[in-house]
Amino acid sequence: MEINGVIIEDTYAEAFPSWISEVLITAATRYLAHEAGEHATGFASSLIGSGVEAGIDRYLSPNDTPDGRPGCIILMAHPDKQQLKNQALQRLAECVLTAPTAAIFDGFPDTPEKIPVRLHFYGDGYEYQTQVGNRNVWAIPIMGGEFIVEENIGIVQGIAGGNFLIMGTDQMSTLTAGQAAVEVIDATDGAAASFPSGVTGSGSKVGSRKYKFMKATTNDAFCPTIKEKNPNSLVPDGVKAIFEIIIDGVSMEVVKRAMADGIRAACRTPGVTHISAGNYGGTLGPYKFYLHELLS
Amino acid sequence: MEINGVIIEDTYAEAFPSWISEVLITAATRYLAHEAGEHATGFASSLIGSGVEAGIDRYLSPNDTPDGRPGCIILMAHPDKQQLKNQALQRLAECVLTAPTAAIFDGFPDTPEKIPVRLHFYGDGYEYQTQVGNRNVWAIPIMGGEFIVEENIGIVQGIAGGNFLIMGTDQMSTLTAGQAAVEVIDATDGAAASFPSGVTGSGSKVGSRKYKFMKATTNDAFCPTIKEKNPNSLVPDGVKAIFEIIIDGVSMEVVKRAMADGIRAACRTPGVTHISAGNYGGTLGPYKFYLHELLS
Amino acid sequence: MEINGVIIEDTYAEAFPSWISEVLITAATRYLAHEAGEHATGFASSLIGSGVEAGIDRYLSPNDTPDGRPGCIILMAHPDKQQLKNQALQRLAECVLTAPTAAIFDGFPDTPEKIPVRLHFYGDGYEYQTQVGNRNVWAIPIMGGEFIVEENIGIVQGIAGGNFLIMGTDQMSTLTAGQAAVEVIDATDGAAASFPSGVTGSGSKVGSRKYKFMKATTNDAFCPTIKEKNPNSLVPDGVKAIFEIIIDGVSMEVVKRAMADGIRAACRTPGVTHISAGNYGGTLGPYKFYLHELLS
Amino acid sequence: MEINGVIIEDTYAEAFPSWISEVLITAATRYLAHEAGEHATGFASSLIGSGVEAGIDRYLSPNDTPDGRPGCIILMAHPDKQQLKNQALQRLAECVLTAPTAAIFDGFPDTPEKIPVRLHFYGDGYEYQTQVGNRNVWAIPIMGGEFIVEENIGIVQGIAGGNFLIMGTDQMSTLTAGQAAVEVIDATDGAAASFPSGVTGSGSKVGSRKYKFMKATTNDAFCPTIKEKNPNSLVPDGVKAIFEIIIDGVSMEVVKRAMADGIRAACRTPGVTHISAGNYGGTLGPYKFYLHELLS
Repeated sequence: MEINGVIIEDTYAEAFPSWISEVLITAATRYLAHEAGEHATGFASSLIGSGVEAGIDRYLSPNDTPDGRPGCIILMAHPDKQQLKNQALQRLAECVLTAPTAAIFDGFPDTPEKIPVRLHFYGDGYEYQTQVGNRNVWAIPIMGGEFIVEENIGIVQGIAGGNFLIMGTDQMSTLTAGQAAVEVIDATDGAAASFPSGVTGSGSKVGSRKYKFMKATTNDAFCPTIKEKNPNSLVPDGVKAIFEIIIDGVSMEVVKRAMADGIRAACRTPGVTHISAGNYGGTLGPYKFYLHELLS
Repeated sequence: MEINGVIIEDTYAEAFPSWISEVLITAATRYLAHEAGEHATGFASSLIGSGVEAGIDRYLSPNDTPDGRPGCIILMAHPDKQQLKNQALQRLAECVLTAPTAAIFDGFPDTPEKIPVRLHFYGDGYEYQTQVGNRNVWAIPIMGGEFIVEENIGIVQGIAGGNFLIMGTDQMSTLTAGQAAVEVIDATDGAAASFPSGVTGSGSKVGSRKYKFMKATTNDAFCPTIKEKNPNSLVPDGVKAIFEIIIDGVSMEVVKRAMADGIRAACRTPGVTHISAGNYGGTLGPYKFYLHELLS
Repeated sequence: MEINGVIIEDTYAEAFPSWISEVLITAATRYLAHEAGEHATGFASSLIGSGVEAGIDRYLSPNDTPDGRPGCIILMAHPDKQQLKNQALQRLAECVLTAPTAAIFDGFPDTPEKIPVRLHFYGDGYEYQTQVGNRNVWAIPIMGGEFIVEENIGIVQGIAGGNFLIMGTDQMSTLTAGQAAVEVIDATDGAAASFPSGVTGSGSKVGSRKYKFMKATTNDAFCPTIKEKNPNSLVPDGVKAIFEIIIDGVSMEVVKRAMADGIRAACRTPGVTHISAGNYGGTLGPYKFYLHELLS
Repeated sequence: MEINGVIIEDTYAEAFPSWISEVLITAATRYLAHEAGEHATGFASSLIGSGVEAGIDRYLSPNDTPDGRPGCIILMAHPDKQQLKNQALQRLAECVLTAPTAAIFDGFPDTPEKIPVRLHFYGDGYEYQTQVGNRNVWAIPIMGGEFIVEENIGIVQGIAGGNFLIMGTDQMSTLTAGQAAVEVIDATDGAAASFPSGVTGSGSKVGSRKYKFMKATTNDAFCPTIKEKNPNSLVPDGVKAIFEIIIDGVSMEVVKRAMADGIRAACRTPGVTHISAGNYGGTLGPYKFYLHELLS
């Protein structure tokens, strides 16, 4: 299969089930909402190393938020509900409660499953319950005024680990294709790419051949600079750089759409020659996203 | 004391000793270096909740980096050397090793005290030692090419918790003053403001009067909306909003300069009426930065 | 009439008919498309001083562009069709043809009225005609590769000069309200706010009382610092700052929606006390947008 | 000559004398100063098409501005003093007077040659003279408060048209090299790159072979896609993309330094193979910047 002259390999992305929360952050301006969301989703690339995978899902116009202010929705993913709750609580306390003019609302108001993030204790008794829009919230007196928080945050059973690999003739073309792919994933409601800037050049394999104490090491089969030394190399001839996009999303359908649109965007950049995907023989998870099926 | 009509209260900021690391991140463009630095210092507002305090100290021109590429220096602070090492290792592995085209160098090359961040094991035996500029580095084959890392990161005994409070007649003027202050602190080599966007409206007191299980709660004495209810209120008449800047820095002198310059910048914004500082009777730490002394 | 405690004055915005063009700019990444659009719409605040009013209308996902790359649509407005054509030609030649990886498409493909921007002569005979998506374009060899341009740019009869005034107790709160309003207008398809950052603090009146050679001078009736000196002052008591949003749009309905949504967003910012609008007794133009009607 | 494996061709950049103005813009925050500077230097790529060449030279800390607020310095270039004055006046009136919280100061306070930009007439008699820092300024009442402007703007005899060409194996690598070069030029005081994002892929030759009415057309000798068809092609074998950086600066020495540092930064990006420069047999101007001399 080819798109725009780029070979789409006949393979699949392996992914796993994950609880997904969505938190709506509003602030006086979009910039301030962005700053809060950016910090709350910093240091959140992978479950093992960061404790959670997180990213900004999308930005909201003042028309579409409970308090009529600009906002963004951040997506956090963890397969374990308790861990997701702990991470959400810590990150909202450290990065949104502290962010100038920010407020917190449930990003999944219609979802029955909720995790509680009890930030109102921070008010030390001065806090009180009220309503903003049609939401039941706490108002907590702080130095800058009042902090508004809706404490029951909806979660859904979604997907983590959707992915694809972009391969090309050189580093910068392949990276640019990755950035174009991330831009279309950013425009997909319910999906986020958790790596810094959404794209990574250091995909991993599970474990290590040489260092037993390492949980994950470089995905050597896909490292172009050692193609000649490595008998297991899967780097196609002529490929000098590979970048990976990893996608978490609220449903199979959303992840499929994000993958398909992202791949099509990547195939528009000159220098891209192949698209593939990461799979690990079922050790990572039960879901399989076949590239040819997604793109037909 | 007054600056530009703003009352400088006769008080001091209480701060404590902390190990400070500086890591120099370079990348193909300044934007890519920024993205890596931003993620590595996300979710890093306070020691208790985030495990480290961190921020971008400054940006470097290609002329001033070992590999001749654009860069930024990130500052991380923790009083415990082992904890600082753990946080540095995790954050560099998750957020810089994964960032497109990024490389890591020691930001304190002339400092004898080093923490090791052994990222080269990630290479699973394919890694090798080489030199870039005059630095001894590891080159690790990754999907995007090679990842360059100098593993011994210098640390110094510096300061955490330098701070001041900006008080004004309304929320947005006081916040704008905070942003102007952060901009001058950003221009101070060796200092960083760790909160999201560098300024917070939710300063804390240690512990809680009402909720015994809380380690920190709202600094109620400085909360304008409860001034009337709170007999211990320290909010001056007419003050409707207070924002705090917290500064970590590599030395007493740097923190003093950042505080003084930041306060002067804040005093330029119409609507600011008072400058104060946070202190806790010595429970936080041994250092005292007297505002009047700093500013004379 | 009041919204969220803010007085909406019983007045109207006076506006005038204008030709409006929309040009779709795509590039390898959204950042590159943004840079091209930003430069092409720089120095474009008002008809008299800049020759055209222009701004970025909205950003497009790769899914929604003819070449599958990220993009933005810029809006340019001038009542005279020939002047609009001249400005469009000059700005596209100087700021988009020169922008790395950029391409130009008609933003109004279904509109019969077109202005030609004959950029293909730049190819000096090496240019050729081709198709991208379903669009007929020229491909012009340039140093960076090929420049793609659809030369017939659609225009419609729209509106220029839609506006409202935000009044508040202090400068920074009122400006923040203006920024929040601009963010919702940015989210309105077919409308743009042409001033730098979309909001201005220096609204004008036509002509001058004192300096005969001036075409426009400060709108003294709305200048808070001279309220006491100026017998014609219309500044309400307690108002210390006024910012104006000026909106150009492709139809009455779009301008109405942008005004209504923008005003509602502005009324969410603490410190805003009044909303008004600019009108000039019919000397500016025939259209009247009554605030109370818009908002009911 | 080679740098980092990149061939530096034995040629020179041809440049011409130009008057250069520097205007210091301050605002309540760096973002607001940036927005004003960005708009004032938009649509300013080349003398013929835009009437002026302009760009942001550098950003200033609050410590380094007359009013203690964040700022930026914009550079404008035109060989004709009267044209430079006209452009400066129009652009400052349209883009800085209108920008929220912005103020204008002379960026060359110690230079004897000044151009007057009489913005105070905008005050319609309500304006008055005062001092800010040690500068003599006008304060003009506007809707947002007061606009501060120092009206005598210093100019010097500098250089326009300093340039170099970056050639590489593919479009995105070569463009990334251009961006890295621009970042080091941005860090050079007294120099600016006027094209959108500072780098262009559509360099021109003077006139046209085929279309007599065109003042400038594509620099076909350097267009890679027509190398085979064009007997005059100067595109080296293997080069698939060429980007040009054009630099205006306040002195020979500054332009030399910006060129040398920019070329060195470009040579760090993988995929770059050659550096050259544009010259036109003396038809453009009298100054010659020899690459080998600059870089030795």
